Amino acid sequence: MAKIGIIYFSGYGHTKKQAEAVHEGAAGVAGADVEIFVVDQDGDLPEGAWEKLTGLDAFIYGSPTYMGGPAWQFKKFADASSKPWFEQKWKNTIAGGFTNSGTVNGDKFSTISYFITLSQQHSQIWLGTGLMPANTKANGPEDVNWTGGFSGALAISPADAGPDEAPRKGDLETAKLYGRRLAEYAVEVKG
Amino acid sequence: MAKIGIIYFSGYGHTKKQAEAVHEGAAGVAGADVEIFVVDQDGDLPEGAWEKLTGLDAFIYGSPTYMGGPAWQFKKFADASSKPWFEQKWKNTIAGGFTNSGTVNGDKFSTISYFITLSQQHSQIWLGTGLMPANTKANGPEDVNWTGGFSGALAISPADAGPDEAPRKGDLETAKLYGRRLAEYAVEVKG
Amino acid sequence: MAKIGIIYFSGYGHTKKQAEAVHEGAAGVAGADVEIFVVDQDGDLPEGAWEKLTGLDAFIYGSPTYMGGPAWQFKKFADASSKPWFEQKWKNTIAGGFTNSGTVNGDKFSTISYFITLSQQHSQIWLGTGLMPANTKANGPEDVNWTGGFSGALAISPADAGPDEAPRKGDLETAKLYGRRLAEYAVEVKG
Amino acid sequence: MAKIGIIYFSGYGHTKKQAEAVHEGAAGVAGADVEIFVVDQDGDLPEGAWEKLTGLDAFIYGSPTYMGGPAWQFKKFADASSKPWFEQKWKNTIAGGFTNSGTVNGDKFSTISYFITLSQQHSQIWLGTGLMPANTKANGPEDVNWTGGFSGALAISPADAGPDEAPRKGDLETAKLYGRRLAEYAVEVKG
Repeated sequence: MAKIGIIYFSGYGHTKKQAEAVHEGAAGVAGADVEIFVVDQDGDLPEGAWEKLTGLDAFIYGSPTYMGGPAWQFKKFADASSKPWFEQKWKNTIAGGFTNSGTVNGDKFSTISYFITLSQQHSQIWLGTGLMPANTKANGPEDVNWTGGFSGALAISPADAGPDEAPRKGDLETAKLYGRRLAEYAVEVKG
Repeated sequence: MAKIGIIYFSGYGHTKKQAEAVHEGAAGVAGADVEIFVVDQDGDLPEGAWEKLTGLDAFIYGSPTYMGGPAWQFKKFADASSKPWFEQKWKNTIAGGFTNSGTVNGDKFSTISYFITLSQQHSQIWLGTGLMPANTKANGPEDVNWTGGFSGALAISPADAGPDEAPRKGDLETAKLYGRRLAEYAVEVKG
Repeated sequence: MAKIGIIYFSGYGHTKKQAEAVHEGAAGVAGADVEIFVVDQDGDLPEGAWEKLTGLDAFIYGSPTYMGGPAWQFKKFADASSKPWFEQKWKNTIAGGFTNSGTVNGDKFSTISYFITLSQQHSQIWLGTGLMPANTKANGPEDVNWTGGFSGALAISPADAGPDEAPRKGDLETAKLYGRRLAEYAVEVKG
Repeated sequence: MAKIGIIYFSGYGHTKKQAEAVHEGAAGVAGADVEIFVVDQDGDLPEGAWEKLTGLDAFIYGSPTYMGGPAWQFKKFADASSKPWFEQKWKNTIAGGFTNSGTVNGDKFSTISYFITLSQQHSQIWLGTGLMPANTKANGPEDVNWTGGFSGALAISPADAGPDEAPRKGDLETAKLYGRRLAEYAVEVKG
């Protein structure tokens, strides 16, 4: 079995929905053992989580984009990962990431770029979405990768939409396909 | 008079439309003398352009986002600017930038980030759009800054939309307001 | 008087030294009123700090580069700034930033890029160091801008050097000159 | 055999030396078939190169950092890769990158970030150096990864050092180890 962890922080529940879609995609892959690790409002992981992380084959990072970057709670997790970093305990594992914010574009790229930088410090192997964008006039938020992420999965949750309304269908399907892609690669490499 | 230059490359005419909107906004400011410098398909500027650039008070950079960054033609201009860079001839002038691409998000941030990096090598002073995003459910491409750029002006031109159709109203108005903001600041500082 | 705030977090004292050099440079400028705001180990500012920030003419952000980005404590401050952001209370003020890390290069650019992104969300006006790099064979850590930052001030503190040893002379002088540049511009614009 | 291509542009010969070190490292791996593709001064590849690229298992991108990003000649290659991109012909191949510039830090991160963005548009799988930095007081340009790249291999060539003098020993050894790492992974995945 390839062990896959989804490590995310969610402020209001939108990123949680995105994380669950990633989970659904990954968990559907034969040979994938997927676990969710929630970074809490204080930037901490549940007891025993750090030990489990070190045994993972793939890490999927998730955070809303707040003020142009990952939420501080996620960054607190990242800073705490300097311990396994020092011994390069996550070296050669697979990594990916996803983010959500209110605005169509709105600096989401900055958050994904940070996830990549973090993964490279850990000597991880980065996979993006592997999805072409839906970018014709007829496309909209119901379509896969309309939001247009290559390096990681992006989602839009309008400022006045609750987590029951957003991210919308296309972004959730994008997250699901991305989870599947990461899990399939982890299983393939592990095999 | 504050001298303002819009230096841009356009592949198919969409970025040209965006540049013209920036021009309209800037040229409407009292005390602003605005000139357009088109980077051609070979990455060259018209004769005499480089001399004029050195006298500018503000530079507005523009390029489509191609393969995740500014078009090579724009980069050729940027590389050629190593001559004025070496003597820091553009030091303390004002800078801004805009980009257009087919996809809603699509790595436009990467192009604006490059413009900023270029400006900082030239010791220029960077101004973003100064516009809040239009990010509620009711918003769409007709609204100012729906595309959601802070660091620079962003535009979306769907893959099957000609330059007569896109960028759309909101992106063009965003470009116009950004041109005005840059010109007003240039005039204020110059005064 | 132009009011200038240096808002920084320091983990072990190296970034504090850099902040003090920035302060020395800024405070030496006639017409500049400079105050330091220390982000503490919990990511909080002293009481009354937020009210003072809103009256500033220039903001200078500082943080070590930890795991490829600003320390989470700094990011907590940045996330908390969503309140003044919402009303764009810092609009058109001046911004700059500095960072320190153990490695010569080591993703410092990522931290400065984040500071810029933050500043652009606040509609601030960004100034880099305005310093050419010292990049010949004869140059070393004693020289101004040997570390080579354009977009912001960079410093190197080797992993085994205490804050009494590092940042070294060139990086501290760079920080000082950058503080002076930011203060001079703030005074000029304010005037 | 895993087919590996090193696609690079070099302005004055320093990046060429770095490319040759990457080649040396990769070619020493059993099962690796390594070919160099030189982007010329006009931004073009030799005849027949594009066809060969489509059969590669791994792509290693290289360019000097000019004016804060990859040289325009490299970007011209990247823009021309929109053809295989459109059909996602390089999907799931491996990618890495290296850059050289005169200054110690000097925006090299920006060039590597661009390589990553390019690779993600092509749905490639990114590997960084997998090397910890040499960051104590005793370290210098003779040491592996003193320059401190995680996401890709970095090199410093002082402005007054010819390609016979720079990049220096540590940067060349870093390039070599990175070539080996990329080739080993390509062989492993291919197997």
